[in-house]
Formats: sequence, structure tokens, C-alpha cells
Amino acid sequence: MRVTNVVVTPVAFRDPPLLNAVGVHQPYALRTVIEVNTEDGVTGLGETYGDGPVVAGLRAVAARMAGLDVFDLAGLRRLVRQATTVAAGTGRSELDGRSRAAEVLYSTFEVALLDAQGKALGRPVVDLLGGRVRDEVPYSAYLFYKWASHPDGPEDDWGPALDPDGIVAQAKRMVGEYGFTAIKVKAGVLPPEQECATIHALADAFPGVPLRIDPNTAWSVPTAVEVGRRLAGVLEYLEDPTPGIAGMAAVAAQVEMPLATNMCVVAREHLPPAIAQRAIGVLLSDHHFWGGLRHTQQLGELCDIFDIGLSMHSNSHLGISLAAMTHVAAATEHLTYACDTHYPWKTEDVVEPGPLRFEGGSVRVPSGAGLGVTLDRDALARLHEQWRRSGIRTRDDVTPMRTVQPEWTGALPRF
Amino acid sequence: MRVTNVVVTPVAFRDPPLLNAVGVHQPYALRTVIEVNTEDGVTGLGETYGDGPVVAGLRAVAARMAGLDVFDLAGLRRLVRQATTVAAGTGRSELDGRSRAAEVLYSTFEVALLDAQGKALGRPVVDLLGGRVRDEVPYSAYLFYKWASHPDGPEDDWGPALDPDGIVAQAKRMVGEYGFTAIKVKAGVLPPEQECATIHALADAFPGVPLRIDPNTAWSVPTAVEVGRRLAGVLEYLEDPTPGIAGMAAVAAQVEMPLATNMCVVAREHLPPAIAQRAIGVLLSDHHFWGGLRHTQQLGELCDIFDIGLSMHSNSHLGISLAAMTHVAAATEHLTYACDTHYPWKTEDVVEPGPLRFEGGSVRVPSGAGLGVTLDRDALARLHEQWRRSGIRTRDDVTPMRTVQPEWTGALPRF
Ligand SMILES: [Mg+2]
Ligand SMILES: [Mg+2]
Repeated sequence: MRVTNVVVTPVAFRDPPLLNAVGVHQPYALRTVIEVNTEDGVTGLGETYGDGPVVAGLRAVAARMAGLDVFDLAGLRRLVRQATTVAAGTGRSELDGRSRAAEVLYSTFEVALLDAQGKALGRPVVDLLGGRVRDEVPYSAYLFYKWASHPDGPEDDWGPALDPDGIVAQAKRMVGEYGFTAIKVKAGVLPPEQECATIHALADAFPGVPLRIDPNTAWSVPTAVEVGRRLAGVLEYLEDPTPGIAGMAAVAAQVEMPLATNMCVVAREHLPPAIAQRAIGVLLSDHHFWGGLRHTQQLGELCDIFDIGLSMHSNSHLGISLAAMTHVAAATEHLTYACDTHYPWKTEDVVEPGPLRFEGGSVRVPSGAGLGVTLDRDALARLHEQWRRSGIRTRDDVTPMRTVQPEWTGALPRF
Repeated sequence: MRVTNVVVTPVAFRDPPLLNAVGVHQPYALRTVIEVNTEDGVTGLGETYGDGPVVAGLRAVAARMAGLDVFDLAGLRRLVRQATTVAAGTGRSELDGRSRAAEVLYSTFEVALLDAQGKALGRPVVDLLGGRVRDEVPYSAYLFYKWASHPDGPEDDWGPALDPDGIVAQAKRMVGEYGFTAIKVKAGVLPPEQECATIHALADAFPGVPLRIDPNTAWSVPTAVEVGRRLAGVLEYLEDPTPGIAGMAAVAAQVEMPLATNMCVVAREHLPPAIAQRAIGVLLSDHHFWGGLRHTQQLGELCDIFDIGLSMHSNSHLGISLAAMTHVAAATEHLTYACDTHYPWKTEDVVEPGPLRFEGGSVRVPSGAGLGVTLDRDALARLHEQWRRSGIRTRDDVTPMRTVQPEWTGALPRF
């Protein structure tokens, strides 16, 4: 079953003013949707980042895909290598670095080819990954300090959250609506002692619920150690407190909870030094940059062998990615923590609602063939038009912060 | 597509008197063939060791398999865990150790389920593993010191090989018939200086051909270091010169060629210490005990990440295993050396001849659905009857050696 053509569609969807260590989310988040069409009339779907170089890279691969057998992932890898020779090195982007570009582009098409395989065989993608070790995948509540509105924009539905009470209220709503059984706080926004107070307030409000904090490397090693000691016995894990493998290793040696990362170990070449230095206790996998669903499974296996816990990272994403995340997590035995997802923050999607429902904080693996989600072509057209009109072509959390704090640089570590 | 029943058939096939560090091959080698039948009339084939505890373990899993979906490898893993709770700890066997038992049993059925999947989909197994990175898999000539005959048996076709000239003659015939482009010598049989002379004779007779020697841990660390220095610039790699990860690490630090192993790293838990101690430069994978084809691919990925070369180990085996080895090797990008195989030494098989041909030392991936091999039921019945009459129920290289050298113990290291 061979590919006839590929459609690459950049989209923009509304995103709230969520705060993090480098700034604030823009009013729209970018993604790209790909449709891989085959001679049998089956279409495979994929979703990834939406910044300009990614779209260009996807188009470069797409232009080479006609004739590829949908089972030939090794052939896809060769096409991506050819295309990234052209596409790499185009400035700040999710594609930065030749090897990362290859993993990101390969992943997007791998998911689409697996979707097409599954649809052709009448099998869910999880079956192509070895079958399910679990029927439901647990996700965590992903809390953010946030403003009530974007600069000059209308207030959103969630309201502001800039102190412990605001975060506890946000948590109550999110846990109430989705049933999450673990809670993560995006940090690095307020001085560390205020963020510790937020965690303690959550611990009081949600006794027994695992808590995590992720300042995105906003802290120096001494600050991270101080926070780690202050939150001993309270945190499930401490995520990316400080930059670099050596910095993480220095913190890990001085705090009791495991350190998690989706920043200091984001490619294969980071694994040997991180393991040798005992820098991390939990890896947040992400099929978007770890080379697809099959390589994400392999990463889980490697973590199991080296006694490293496994969770899952998320950027702002739509339903195709949530489906892919759910299938691979369902097929990965060594998934030791609830996965991250930004899903509750979005109000628009490109897939028809239905198969992706949160119950008790978990998403049941879609039962349909392939990824089990259906593209909503009207919604896709609408979000593409929104992309066109928004003018946003790269993710940039720093510039919108400058409209409020002109001296803001986003430089890390801040504390 | 669900399993209806499984047939487990132990077989014995004639094996020449090949010598190694612990003794000599028995007149018959044991294997077990499994047939997994499904409601669609498709049958998946698997092959593994044939000693008694393995056969019992296979039967214990087989008895639980009715109703299993052929795509549900996670479900197979659960069945194997249940069965090995019963089957483990039954004495000296390829199943020794609970975790090894699970990997061996899982692997056998995983191959059969992948064969059934492929047959049902009209796809070769390599496609279910991500497609082929190569069309042909290179194998090496696997040379043995040998007697002209088993004790009290007739002379075989190959004649004796007990000195450099004998091995060079063996190599010329084997390379002539199969076209191998790499040569391995099973060692640990004669004093090390004589085995070094054999390697030098091969180097003279086959200039430029990569050479390997494998004494199966017959040497002490000082002996191994001396051999390594003597064969510097001549060997492609030095395989299992001495026992244990620490011993291998001590040798590795003192010789220039990479050390290879299928003895000190044979399970997941051996990887972290071997990597930390830099004990090995090449891993000889083997899907029979590394948990099947998909886990063998993952092992290749892990070796790539940690800059460890990958080759493939072989015991005496039949055509189902050669097909499985060829499919997984064809799908494994990080295969950096020609694979081992005992295949040229056998004169009987359970599959119809045809798809598995050596040309230029390589086997082309069978093009048929699944593994691409067809069971020869007459041959299976014949080799099963041979198993019944042989009375051999476990591999034992020590006892037949004692018929010639009554004081023989097989204890290692010998030199
Ligand atoms: Mg993070
Ligand atoms: Mg060996």
C-alpha cells in the first residue's frame, strides 16, 4: 500500500496566557497537521510543532513520499535524512540541530504511517506497537500561573492564577472536570518561596495526590537544592530545576526526591552522560522529538533497564497528538507516572470529538482503527485560516511578556 | 484473529563432533518447533532450544494460549509470566533463572505470532518490525576444531580439523560454498598459542577478511591479554576471552581490539554494569534469549546509543530460526558486524528448502508472507522420531568428551 501524496496544513488554535520561566504563551499556539494519502484511499494523520522551519521540513519530506510503502518506516527514515540535509539549520525552531530535525520529522510521518497501517488492517495503532499493557492511560493535571487575559485581549474562562489560592482554585476545577489523580505545577514564574507555598497549599487541598513542580531550569543549583529540601516528602518528583546534566546531577545528589527532565535529556546522545552522572530519576518521553512511537517504546525499555522512571512530556497540542500519546503509553509497560498533557487548556481541535475522553484522569485507548480519531475538515480549514490571519510563525513567549515588562529577557536561571 | 491451539514438537537433528571449551557436541542437537494455529486457518511458526525444561515451559504457555489475539504481544507476556511461575527452577537448562525463562518462552511465541500476523496481512515479518534497512543479511563462517567422527560413529563429510591446516581447509570449503566474508573460530580447545597460530594461518590464507576468535571464557585474564596482544591488528574482535563483566573489563583495558560477548551480557540487568565498566565493545544479540524480535531491535538501539557494536549469536538451529534471525537483522539499522550462524553444519531441517539461500555470505530476506518459510511436515515427523529414539533430552557437551578423556570436567577457565 503506497503513498500517493501528503497534505501539510499549519494551524493556529487559541491558547490562554499561561506563564512560565521564559514568559507567557501567545494568544495562539501553532501546530501542523499532516494527511498521508494512499492508493487504497486510506489517509494517515500526524501532528507536530507548527513553527516555520518545521512546516518547511515537513514539506520537504512530503515532497519525497509518493510511492513509499506505508509499512516501510526504514524507507521513511532514508527520505527524512535526505530532506533534512536540505532543511536543517534554519534558525531558532523545534528543528534546531540536524539530529533533532530528523527525529521530529520522522516522528510526524511515522505516526501517520502507523495510522494508515492500522486503518488498512482494521487494527488500532496500539496493536501495531505490541498490544496494550493498559486500557487507559493516566494523565496529570497541568497547572499554570496565568493572567486573566492576554495583553489587550478579553478575559478567558479560567481567570487569573497568580498565588496559591488561584492555583488551588484552578486545580479544583481541573481535577473536578477531568478526574486527574496527579498534579503538576508549571513554575519558575514567581520567587521560589512563593511557588513552594503553592505546592504546600495543593498538598493541603489534595492530600495524598502526587505533586510535581517544573520551573523549566529557572533555578540555580543552590536554589534548586533549597527548594528540594523544603518540599521533601511533598513532591512526587522535581522536574528540571536547573540547567544541564552536570547541574541536575549536583542537585540530585543533595535532594531526596527523583529529578525528572524533558530538558537536559532530549536526545539519544544525552542518555549516556546523564546515566553515568546519575543526573535524572525520571525521563519525560515525548514521541514528537524522540523519533516516533516505536522509538518512544524503546526509550521506555532503556529507562527500565537503567532503573529510570518514565513519564510523558507535552507541549500545547491537539487531538491527533493526544491519540498518538495514548496509544504509545498504552503499549509501554514501563510507564511509571501519569503523563503530562496541555489538553484541558485548548478550546479548539481538528478532530471530531468523541473517542478522546478523560475519565478519572485517564484516556481510554480509542477503539477505532489506526489512531482512532477522525479529521474534522471544517475545523482544520478554520484553524488554518486562523493561522494565516494570526501572522504567528514561531513560538515566542518572550516578546508578549515584553509588552508588559519591557525589560524582560527570559534569561535563565532567574532565581 | 485468535489462537485456537498450539502444537509443540521437540526434534533432534544430526550434529557433527564440533569441539569447544567445555567438550564436544553430541551426535544430535535438540530444538523445539511450535505451530500456533488460529481461527483463520493461519499457522505461525517458532523455533527454540530443545532441552526438557524448555519443552515443558513451552507446553505450559501453549496450554494457556487459546483465545489470544495474534497482535496481543502484551497479552502473551502476561501468559508467559503466569506459566513461568510454574515452570522456572527446573534444573540446568536454557531456562535457568526465572527472568531468562520468561525471555526464552516469550521469544518463541512472539516469533510465531509475528509469523501469523505477517501471513494474515500478506506481509513479511520484516515489515512488522519497521521495514528493511538492508535486503540481505551478512553471516560469518563459523569454524570449529572437530573430530573426524563422534565416538563410535561414522566419519562425517567434513573430516577432522585439529590444527591450523585443518581449520584453513575447513574455511576454504565453507567460504567456497557460502561466500562468507567474515570468519569466526570457536576456540578454547587447544592451548592458546596453537589457536593463535590458527588465526595467523587464516590471516595468511584470507588476507583482508575480518577474523574473530571465541574461546567461550576458557582463558584467565592474563592469558586473554596475552592472546589479545599477540593478535593485535589481526582480529576484528575478541569474543568472550574470560569470564564475567569484571574480567572482561580488565582485558578490555589492556588490548586494542573490541571485546565481544554472548556470555557476560545475556540479560537486561547485565547491561548497566557492563556499560559502566566498559567491559564490552560488541554485543552478540540473540532473539532466542533477548525476548524476541522486537526486543532484539530495542537492544540494537540501546547499543547504538552507548556506542557498542552489534553482531548476532547463534546456537545450533534450523531454518525457522535462520528466517527469524534474518528478518530482525534486516530491520535493525545498528547491525555493525556479520552475524554468526551454525547453519552450514546441519544436514537436516524442518522447513522446505528454497527461501533461505546463502549468496556472497548473505541471506536475502525471504519475500513470502510472515517468516517466509514453509514447514515440511514429513521432515518434522522424522526429526521428532529421531528425538524420541535418540534419548537425548538436554544439551551436554561434557559427557561425550569423557568417553574419550575420562578425567574431563569442562571446568573453565582452562588456560
Ligand atoms: Mg518540563
Ligand atoms: Mg560466543
